[in-house]
Amino acid sequence: MHTSVSHLDQTSVKALIDTHIRSYCGDRRLHAKKVGERYVLFWDTIETLLLAGGKRFRPYMTLLAYESYAPTANVTDILPAALAQELLHAAVLIHDDIIDRDTIRYGVKNIAGQYSDIYECYTNSVAKQEHLSLSAALLAGDILLSDAHRLVRAVNCPEERITQAAEILSMGIFEVIGGELLDSEAAILPVGVVKAERVARHKTASYSFVSPLTMGAALAGASIAERALLGELSENVGVGYQLRDDFLGIFGQQLNTGKSTSTDIIEGKRTFIIEQFDALATNAQKKRFYQLFHRIDVTDRDIEEARSLLIASGAKAAINARIDTLHSKANDIVTKLTISNEAKVRFRDLITQCLEREG
Amino acid sequence: MHTSVSHLDQTSVKALIDTHIRSYCGDRRLHAKKVGERYVLFWDTIETLLLAGGKRFRPYMTLLAYESYAPTANVTDILPAALAQELLHAAVLIHDDIIDRDTIRYGVKNIAGQYSDIYECYTNSVAKQEHLSLSAALLAGDILLSDAHRLVRAVNCPEERITQAAEILSMGIFEVIGGELLDSEAAILPVGVVKAERVARHKTASYSFVSPLTMGAALAGASIAERALLGELSENVGVGYQLRDDFLGIFGQQLNTGKSTSTDIIEGKRTFIIEQFDALATNAQKKRFYQLFHRIDVTDRDIEEARSLLIASGAKAAINARIDTLHSKANDIVTKLTISNEAKVRFRDLITQCLEREG
Repeated sequence: MHTSVSHLDQTSVKALIDTHIRSYCGDRRLHAKKVGERYVLFWDTIETLLLAGGKRFRPYMTLLAYESYAPTANVTDILPAALAQELLHAAVLIHDDIIDRDTIRYGVKNIAGQYSDIYECYTNSVAKQEHLSLSAALLAGDILLSDAHRLVRAVNCPEERITQAAEILSMGIFEVIGGELLDSEAAILPVGVVKAERVARHKTASYSFVSPLTMGAALAGASIAERALLGELSENVGVGYQLRDDFLGIFGQQLNTGKSTSTDIIEGKRTFIIEQFDALATNAQKKRFYQLFHRIDVTDRDIEEARSLLIASGAKAAINARIDTLHSKANDIVTKLTISNEAKVRFRDLITQCLEREG
Repeated sequence: MHTSVSHLDQTSVKALIDTHIRSYCGDRRLHAKKVGERYVLFWDTIETLLLAGGKRFRPYMTLLAYESYAPTANVTDILPAALAQELLHAAVLIHDDIIDRDTIRYGVKNIAGQYSDIYECYTNSVAKQEHLSLSAALLAGDILLSDAHRLVRAVNCPEERITQAAEILSMGIFEVIGGELLDSEAAILPVGVVKAERVARHKTASYSFVSPLTMGAALAGASIAERALLGELSENVGVGYQLRDDFLGIFGQQLNTGKSTSTDIIEGKRTFIIEQFDALATNAQKKRFYQLFHRIDVTDRDIEEARSLLIASGAKAAINARIDTLHSKANDIVTKLTISNEAKVRFRDLITQCLEREG
């Protein structure tokens, strides 16, 4: 099957990746049988989670970059590398959920959640159930992380490009681990030590934007210079994506985001917008704001007042200005890329989608 | 530096690997700096753990197999692949410790243990400290697992051999994950569902014997047939190693093993020797044994009586007979290998060391 640029949209990529997830899990189940039926069941829980949600945005970026630099090539040649992005993402989420003791993801039970049910009939001890189901989730994250590496090597490309792609994956993982560390430590380190934009760069932009896009380009044989431009572009979009997330966490519409717009204020998340507030607000504004921020007993009215203070201080305008700057920078880089005009349009659409999204 | 067969003993391999660990961690620290000083500190804790203990047995096996099949080659060419075995092993231990909530490994504080101390000055909340230090440990295991893949690619070998080595690593990880799952589920599944020897094969033999030895051989250019023989050999030794572990857990000398020889009986670990007991003991022996097994309130005298029952039933003799069989099988395979007589002696020494060890 030849999938050309005109067919490659986000809907068709989702269908392509979902099919590939099924065949990947089917293959893993086949091998798991040699270890035992319990391991086959383990792969069922992984498949359930992988197919439960996800827009396959990272695989789309890999395929988009590949096609932009190799317009006549067949994207199915690098489908495993696109899937690798998704496996890495799933591994990160699964391990995040362990730390946060969450059992739901994409509206379905995650690995630990599914295993709690599985183990229920074998033991009455809730502690034992939880212990073993977290263990299963830990193992699931591990194997998906490992298999991301394996899949990158399974593409149909010249060897030196595969080597570059593997190194890009390794770098992405190295960075997201650092970003996760910064993010988790931000909760206890003195205010200001960990900058929100730094976390966004390493935790979000790294493996969710830089790796998918530069890997697609590398597999297409793009030059080092082009990949560097693309890396810069990805970093701007990735950071902007996270800032937009922070913005929507306070000023979004719950109907669109699916998340409460009070949580960030109640939990006292020190996002970019709060950093801007600290820099811009008057002492009176700060005094009032911190009476409302990071408190479990606030009313809707209090939340509304906190929002007003973020607006009055100029923090809301500041985050939007920063996102606009990142948007322009990214668009400027698109202009410099050595790709077709049609591909440039698709990159610009992608950037707009990331930085102007409502949910 | 050319390290020839005559120089490659376990002591020199330990020195070689320890040096390589230092330079690997130094390199990672350098890159970590770009993410932030907190990430540099993270790599300090990893280096502390990596250098705290470990006989570098897995790297030794990789280098031994490599040298046996490429006697004139320089082992330093594949040092990164040897280190990869050690990183994978560390990742497995770090993640095991999370599940078991252990904070000590090799007599020093593991990642979570070190981070508990680091976070102590930032928060009074023990729950928060624990939460964040477990998170750091999770991330440490993840990056070491990922870097194992990265290091395998860093060897100085023909590309097709690297591809084989990478696939061997992937397979080893896939298997050990399955083995860990079986092992953890054995605690709640009905007795007999999970066989001890199956767990030993997938959890221990896979990544601790099969991967290190077959990878060394693959990097040396050994044929598929030779690697298959070596795989079979490794499985026998790996299973035997685990059975010897089970044996020492009950009949060993604490002075040599460094572990209590009561724990397995008190915790009711259903090892191979217990399976043999179930198959061989009389009803009277079983009745008495299970009054003593898996109880927290047993006396030293009770433990001694449990041991006597394992001897009287023939279970002790059965596990030793099984280890002897695996020993012979492994030695028979050594005879068939296409390697020098000197190399064969080294393989036989390795096998004896694994299967007749006292600690």
